Amino acid sequence: MKPRLRLGLPKGSLQDATVELFAKAGYEITVSSRSYFPAIDDDEIECMLLRPQESARYVEHGLLDVAITGFDWILKRDVVEVAELVYSKQLKRPVRWVVAVPDDSPIRAVADLAGKRIATEAVELTEQFLAEHGITAEVEFSWGATEVKPPYLADAIVEVTETGSSLHANNLRIVHEILQSTTRLIANRAAYADPWKRAKIDGIALLLKAALAAHGKVGMMLNVHEDNLARVEAILPSLKSPTISKLQAPGWYAVNTILDEGLVRRLIPQLKASGAEDIVEFPLNKIVE
Amino acid sequence: MKPRLRLGLPKGSLQDATVELFAKAGYEITVSSRSYFPAIDDDEIECMLLRPQESARYVEHGLLDVAITGFDWILKRDVVEVAELVYSKQLKRPVRWVVAVPDDSPIRAVADLAGKRIATEAVELTEQFLAEHGITAEVEFSWGATEVKPPYLADAIVEVTETGSSLHANNLRIVHEILQSTTRLIANRAAYADPWKRAKIDGIALLLKAALAAHGKVGMMLNVHEDNLARVEAILPSLKSPTISKLQAPGWYAVNTILDEGLVRRLIPQLKASGAEDIVEFPLNKIVE
Amino acid sequence: MKPRLRLGLPKGSLQDATVELFAKAGYEITVSSRSYFPAIDDDEIECMLLRPQESARYVEHGLLDVAITGFDWILKRDVVEVAELVYSKQLKRPVRWVVAVPDDSPIRAVADLAGKRIATEAVELTEQFLAEHGITAEVEFSWGATEVKPPYLADAIVEVTETGSSLHANNLRIVHEILQSTTRLIANRAAYADPWKRAKIDGIALLLKAALAAHGKVGMMLNVHEDNLARVEAILPSLKSPTISKLQAPGWYAVNTILDEGLVRRLIPQLKASGAEDIVEFPLNKIVE
Amino acid sequence: MKPRLRLGLPKGSLQDATVELFAKAGYEITVSSRSYFPAIDDDEIECMLLRPQESARYVEHGLLDVAITGFDWILKRDVVEVAELVYSKQLKRPVRWVVAVPDDSPIRAVADLAGKRIATEAVELTEQFLAEHGITAEVEFSWGATEVKPPYLADAIVEVTETGSSLHANNLRIVHEILQSTTRLIANRAAYADPWKRAKIDGIALLLKAALAAHGKVGMMLNVHEDNLARVEAILPSLKSPTISKLQAPGWYAVNTILDEGLVRRLIPQLKASGAEDIVEFPLNKIVE
Amino acid sequence: MKPRLRLGLPKGSLQDATVELFAKAGYEITVSSRSYFPAIDDDEIECMLLRPQESARYVEHGLLDVAITGFDWILKRDVVEVAELVYSKQLKRPVRWVVAVPDDSPIRAVADLAGKRIATEAVELTEQFLAEHGITAEVEFSWGATEVKPPYLADAIVEVTETGSSLHANNLRIVHEILQSTTRLIANRAAYADPWKRAKIDGIALLLKAALAAHGKVGMMLNVHEDNLARVEAILPSLKSPTISKLQAPGWYAVNTILDEGLVRRLIPQLKASGAEDIVEFPLNKIVE
Amino acid sequence: MKPRLRLGLPKGSLQDATVELFAKAGYEITVSSRSYFPAIDDDEIECMLLRPQESARYVEHGLLDVAITGFDWILKRDVVEVAELVYSKQLKRPVRWVVAVPDDSPIRAVADLAGKRIATEAVELTEQFLAEHGITAEVEFSWGATEVKPPYLADAIVEVTETGSSLHANNLRIVHEILQSTTRLIANRAAYADPWKRAKIDGIALLLKAALAAHGKVGMMLNVHEDNLARVEAILPSLKSPTISKLQAPGWYAVNTILDEGLVRRLIPQLKASGAEDIVEFPLNKIVE
Repeated sequence: MKPRLRLGLPKGSLQDATVELFAKAGYEITVSSRSYFPAIDDDEIECMLLRPQESARYVEHGLLDVAITGFDWILKRDVVEVAELVYSKQLKRPVRWVVAVPDDSPIRAVADLAGKRIATEAVELTEQFLAEHGITAEVEFSWGATEVKPPYLADAIVEVTETGSSLHANNLRIVHEILQSTTRLIANRAAYADPWKRAKIDGIALLLKAALAAHGKVGMMLNVHEDNLARVEAILPSLKSPTISKLQAPGWYAVNTILDEGLVRRLIPQLKASGAEDIVEFPLNKIVE
Repeated sequence: MKPRLRLGLPKGSLQDATVELFAKAGYEITVSSRSYFPAIDDDEIECMLLRPQESARYVEHGLLDVAITGFDWILKRDVVEVAELVYSKQLKRPVRWVVAVPDDSPIRAVADLAGKRIATEAVELTEQFLAEHGITAEVEFSWGATEVKPPYLADAIVEVTETGSSLHANNLRIVHEILQSTTRLIANRAAYADPWKRAKIDGIALLLKAALAAHGKVGMMLNVHEDNLARVEAILPSLKSPTISKLQAPGWYAVNTILDEGLVRRLIPQLKASGAEDIVEFPLNKIVE
Repeated sequence: MKPRLRLGLPKGSLQDATVELFAKAGYEITVSSRSYFPAIDDDEIECMLLRPQESARYVEHGLLDVAITGFDWILKRDVVEVAELVYSKQLKRPVRWVVAVPDDSPIRAVADLAGKRIATEAVELTEQFLAEHGITAEVEFSWGATEVKPPYLADAIVEVTETGSSLHANNLRIVHEILQSTTRLIANRAAYADPWKRAKIDGIALLLKAALAAHGKVGMMLNVHEDNLARVEAILPSLKSPTISKLQAPGWYAVNTILDEGLVRRLIPQLKASGAEDIVEFPLNKIVE
Repeated sequence: MKPRLRLGLPKGSLQDATVELFAKAGYEITVSSRSYFPAIDDDEIECMLLRPQESARYVEHGLLDVAITGFDWILKRDVVEVAELVYSKQLKRPVRWVVAVPDDSPIRAVADLAGKRIATEAVELTEQFLAEHGITAEVEFSWGATEVKPPYLADAIVEVTETGSSLHANNLRIVHEILQSTTRLIANRAAYADPWKRAKIDGIALLLKAALAAHGKVGMMLNVHEDNLARVEAILPSLKSPTISKLQAPGWYAVNTILDEGLVRRLIPQLKASGAEDIVEFPLNKIVE
Repeated sequence: MKPRLRLGLPKGSLQDATVELFAKAGYEITVSSRSYFPAIDDDEIECMLLRPQESARYVEHGLLDVAITGFDWILKRDVVEVAELVYSKQLKRPVRWVVAVPDDSPIRAVADLAGKRIATEAVELTEQFLAEHGITAEVEFSWGATEVKPPYLADAIVEVTETGSSLHANNLRIVHEILQSTTRLIANRAAYADPWKRAKIDGIALLLKAALAAHGKVGMMLNVHEDNLARVEAILPSLKSPTISKLQAPGWYAVNTILDEGLVRRLIPQLKASGAEDIVEFPLNKIVE
Repeated sequence: MKPRLRLGLPKGSLQDATVELFAKAGYEITVSSRSYFPAIDDDEIECMLLRPQESARYVEHGLLDVAITGFDWILKRDVVEVAELVYSKQLKRPVRWVVAVPDDSPIRAVADLAGKRIATEAVELTEQFLAEHGITAEVEFSWGATEVKPPYLADAIVEVTETGSSLHANNLRIVHEILQSTTRLIANRAAYADPWKRAKIDGIALLLKAALAAHGKVGMMLNVHEDNLARVEAILPSLKSPTISKLQAPGWYAVNTILDEGLVRRLIPQLKASGAEDIVEFPLNKIVE
């Protein structure tokens, strides 16, 4: 029987983004609404959806070979961090775990948490944080809706936030940022020591990173006469030299390059002014640099 | 400032049934989709929605005066059980916490759990159960979808079930029933010692129980001539004598009684055969016996 | 093992109304979105959801004992019609099977159908209808969306309609009404000959009819002084004499009666003008007359 | 051809509550999702859904005979107010039109509005209000989402609110309440002068009011021995004397009364303590007093 | 503090298409379901969603710097039309404002509108149109569902339509087309005079136009031997000469060109017949010509 | 009047995939939720949505010129199979028609079906299959939910399945596979003999196939120095030689090729190891080989 890699995918807010990322990386994952075991078009992989809060534990114990989860959930786990994958659902910013209190709370600094009641979904993270600051407080596991617990059911909360808007909507103020967390591809130590599994895992990591590298990047093609070539080259970012080839039309060159989509907004007017013609932007799937 | 009673209502599967029960009891609770603080048409009560898993803790600590939660979540809490309220969402059966394993698992009895990995949302309940049976096993908190964990991520689970259909759908077999649980109205000890709060809490309990008593019960009115009155009375359940009054029409009586809706199915044909006329069944809101 | 009655319930447009009717009749049927076998709170009955088009066939063949279906689907089936149940989903009107053609079609009468192409979901019904009229035409089974087939894919259709609005929206004109159909409770001949099953089936029929009888009916209570009693009695419908009883207050009577909800609209002003006081209307569940 | 009454029903937030109110009053209105012309089970009435903002205009001009709309939209219309119907969607409170400004706005009183830009859906109402206060300001029609316009697009708004929660969520502060508005049944002057139409309209009004009167009211039946009758009578509200009748059982009386559902919460414990037995609460459809 | 551009985006039917167009142009706009202030990944821009009917007014008054709205809503506004953006939601056809009447109305021409009642959401546009034709009629603002108003509440309507299907479904006939309208990028005069804002606005316009230019266009690559090059070139549209480069394989050329997607349907068979090989079509994001 | 091609598109599970495929092929089809006649941006084509079960019949009879349907529905139809289009909704596997029975059924082989009751939506297919095997059984048309019919209403079913998961969920076991079916473009014989229609149909077929060919394929561009060119060429699949062109930078070449997306997963690491630089993968719309 051939070996298979057991892969944990995050159930919940990261699920759709993860499936989409694998799609860009070349893996078609089909999630059925009634099953926690998505199909994947690679016979050597078995997928399972599970909450990111618990996949690190299962990777550590070897029940999964590899999983996608958040940095926040692997703090105290003995696993291999194979790759960092920055693709959180909205603005590609890392999520942040923060201490938050009601707008009118007397708590102003971490020290003020002493003796208080803190609700959080991340009990281990919170206790480690308090220990590092030498503070004693009551940390209670919150089963959800943590933001509505202050002031009646908690004095403070430790909660994850991207933009802070949910905290704001619940009249909460951020007192301290505990850590920033991005998504990680993690592997079990023993699995990563196995040559077949390691090659498989590294291949997945390479393709996921290539897909992420292409996100927000675009290809650009333009034609330019040799008289203007230097000016056009000067405008293009120097980091990466563009691919230039001679056209059939005498004196003309094709320039092909890869750019940040955000940068295109600024460069196009300049390129046009410098003699670039037939500027065309096209989408990319993957970039391997 | 007038005193207020702080009431915890169950977020989740029991939420709609609870709001409906309070409506039958005479309290209009308005849940807004964006808020965890429903409005109630009683100025002396403040409501909050929260997971039944955690409301008992908050009642024990005095952060809530009273709450609706399940018996399964108050096992080790020092709270007052004011009333048992049997109204779980489907068939009015109590929910059951069971040990379940894959259909083809070698685990056949509780003793076989020794040394196994058990996933559950109810860690305390499971550990207490294992201790009572003198068994040592690894109990892991499950963040959800517990039924899909065996066999890869767990050897057994401890899970709540009403009809067993979800377990069956996941090819799991029940090994043992740990406890049956119904819904309870619980109160904080100190709050229940306060006369104003106690009267308020007892009033709520009385009305909830009156509303539950009316559930599945109906009123029945019929007319009967004095010649047939004894036969009709003999058919009606003897527990509770019906209310009988003389009609204006000479020799006729009106009979008014309360019956189990299920019983009506059997009695109507008999009543008709015994001379009852104008049989009418009507709905009831509350019954105080 | 105790006997059980196998009951077919209509999947589709009548489903919710049927479950509601059984609820009024005193049976709680719980439909799960993933199952065709609803639960019912009567251990002697097994339910199954299936399309009304095919339940009559299964009752005829004895695979089901009893079913709820439309008169239109039992035309040529050898089954027992136990009861007619008029509760089609909207305005309590029977549904009608009609021949319809495009507004601008030359087909004006049944005779014009000769040689035409007719699309319908009810092939047997249509063929029987054509045979009765001595007409030869091509009848094709339509898998759905029959109304959009004319004029390209059919010259005429035979389709079910309640209000005619869907036909109108598709620019179709009714040429002929083939039959009106209401809902029926049907039973297998052999099952209905079995005493236990027959009693069970008749009991269901009695309760369903009692629930339907109460639909659109309300109870009314009022108080009236003896001086006005005759006037009030004269206003109330003569079909059914009201229940009258003496009140404790000297000279006053309580009048209790059952009325068509639609009639109440006309009677209340007259009753008030005739001296009726404290007029109260209340809902009814069942009426057995 | 028989005469028909043309009735305008409110499209939007009041729609479902209106259909439900008519149902309680005895009229079955069937709204199809694709049509603005609901069916009603009264051949003498034609219904049309339209925005409450414009129905008063159509009633005034005689294009509709009668309509349900808000007091706020009939201020300057020459129509007959047939009845006030208090049933706004949530807590049966009237809606309020208020002037609101950002929490940190320097506008503190009506006088501060002079020269400001005010956005509102109710331009006429706002201009009349400003004129009454002798204030000149720029009033702009807002096509929706008025609450998000301050501070960028408006200095203040005139907006309708029930609980104020939407204003609060947008960081707005109420400066002044312009008027409270409840729902009204209005009629065209000429239609109301026509005897047939007037009788029809008054009948609708009577039934709607009877249905509203029953809302929040319940019926209560109890049995009591003559020794306790006076005590029980003393507890029941004195406004309306209950209906008392002698039972067949010697010395026993049946008491039947109508109560505010809210009052029941307080009375039941007292009634029980005073010797009332078999207390049953039942729902009511209509009350005509 | 750095300057920011205040941008109005159209709430409603154009919203999703607008967000998608900005995405193609390189701006990521994130709309939250609870907010009218979408996030955009450009710190120099602030977005706000508002109805296209009112954004022109706010741009004229300088409360917004720039907005996307329809030509129909800027007729009488003193704003700068920066660009026309043809991307209405369905078939890229401009929307049309038309006069429509019931199918069986005697109104046949604009002149027949004299003295009639016209319902419309575009009161200004309608009044201007009537004035230009020297016609006096009663124009009434319609709050929505304008198509259902004739014949009871209006004799005619002035309404926007793309395909006419909604008019047809309501049995309305088009009498006259008043104007065709496409989407525009408009700017406030003062803002457009400010150099920083003007550069910013022109940049947005350039990128939106480049994205629109790429819509419906595709890139095509093919290889061709020098013997067939002329024939292939003859087939490709002459407007724009393709980019031709020599391949490594002797005698072979790569041809790269941009085509209307619709044209591809006709060209591919011809190209193949003329010796083109390895024809590949690929998507484009932006075209700057 | 110009000729038009009448095209039948599959209503139901293949609908979205078909619209998407036409979009890739360059045809924009706009489906309105209320209409069975989608718009298409080609004036020479008229579309109609209809169930794949019946479109073959309409093509055979000439009521449609061309349609997309399944091979399973054209078995006995006299139509032209223009093209096979493999794009079934999930994993691009063909669907299979199978005989299935309950897990615990005694039926083990086709021969065991003799005398049994078989439910199926595909009566013709089933009867032909039984005839080929010389078996007599009762075949009943099933109006839907065929999987839940065994064991009560049928002994076996003939049903379509892709992955078998729905059969498994209903405790059914596959006894025999009758046929595999893929999607086909079929044409009416007379229409296909008409030169204008044939050219139109062949053009559609060519473009649909080109779009399908591009599915799962991607373009890849990379740069490589002449020292490494041979090694890179050796890695790329030999079937199709890549397009190689000289870059402006001395000694460097651009390599452009088309690959299976699935293959990319394996090639990228090898290409990188062989000296390929700036590897970029980009999406393709169509491939014409």
